[in-house]
Amino acid sequence: MPNIVYIACSMDGYIADKTGSIDWLTSIPNESNSDFGYGEFMDRIDGIVMGRKTFETVLSFPEWPYTKPAFVLSYTISKIPAHIEGKCTILNGSVNEIVQNLNNQGINAIYVDGGKTIQAFLKEDLIDEMTITTVSKILGSGTPLFGSNENLLNFKIFKTELLNKYFTKTVYVREQ
Amino acid sequence: MPNIVYIACSMDGYIADKTGSIDWLTSIPNESNSDFGYGEFMDRIDGIVMGRKTFETVLSFPEWPYTKPAFVLSYTISKIPAHIEGKCTILNGSVNEIVQNLNNQGINAIYVDGGKTIQAFLKEDLIDEMTITTVSKILGSGTPLFGSNENLLNFKIFKTELLNKYFTKTVYVREQ
Repeated sequence: MPNIVYIACSMDGYIADKTGSIDWLTSIPNESNSDFGYGEFMDRIDGIVMGRKTFETVLSFPEWPYTKPAFVLSYTISKIPAHIEGKCTILNGSVNEIVQNLNNQGINAIYVDGGKTIQAFLKEDLIDEMTITTVSKILGSGTPLFGSNENLLNFKIFKTELLNKYFTKTVYVREQ
Repeated sequence: MPNIVYIACSMDGYIADKTGSIDWLTSIPNESNSDFGYGEFMDRIDGIVMGRKTFETVLSFPEWPYTKPAFVLSYTISKIPAHIEGKCTILNGSVNEIVQNLNNQGINAIYVDGGKTIQAFLKEDLIDEMTITTVSKILGSGTPLFGSNENLLNFKIFKTELLNKYFTKTVYVREQ
């Protein structure tokens, strides 16, 4: 029942720039039009958990990108837009409760997305695997992937891959 | 005349833990007793520039590790220990002045070491190449490799290499 992070960040660990934008990432040419393994990853997961900010970013996309059930952790959003009804659910509670709740629904492989949500899961040592694509830019400021954490968490590297001259993708697996 | 960073950091971007220690790094088993390319890198450089903290860490090693001339950026240290006289020089001034000064002495390929020193060079866009070995641990706190920076800096990836199941080494080269 793995909880999995799959995310891109800058060399200095930011997932969005200081304006909240990911233009610095999406503007990198992708001549081969590759999805860099994202489709294969999405096939593995049963559902997506994200925070409010990530949800708002995703809502700004031309269309809702997920075919798997999505869950937004938020105490402030009470209603989701009509066009994604049935595709997305608002949840609140502790991350432990949320994982239990989703697992009880048969949602076992959870894609955990967004800085605050990932940080909340890491604080509870609830992340089993992290695929981090490092983008060869130093942003200097922005939304950090990691936050402060009381405990040291050990991972081992399952594989690392140079996707193109701007992206390197590493898969880390939790090790006790 | 490249200024080069060659450093290890945790997944969350720390080069030392909250006590200033690098035990989390040096305790990782290295069964093949590999230097992971460090010797080859040291052959390329003409001299090392580091800050006071890195200097103090290096002084705690059983012996002085460098065969190339070393320079410590510090306004507080006025004297170096007798056993490294002739091997190490105290410098102060702006990083631009220091690079100019070293280049004038024929020290062209400069190994830039230590968080604050690297950050000061990056602020002036004086880093041409960064070899970052990412260690598969989340420390949660410590001494950060990167600091805030006004400008976005673009790099491209020269190569990436899985050294063992805990280390991945990526060479980034500055791109305008």
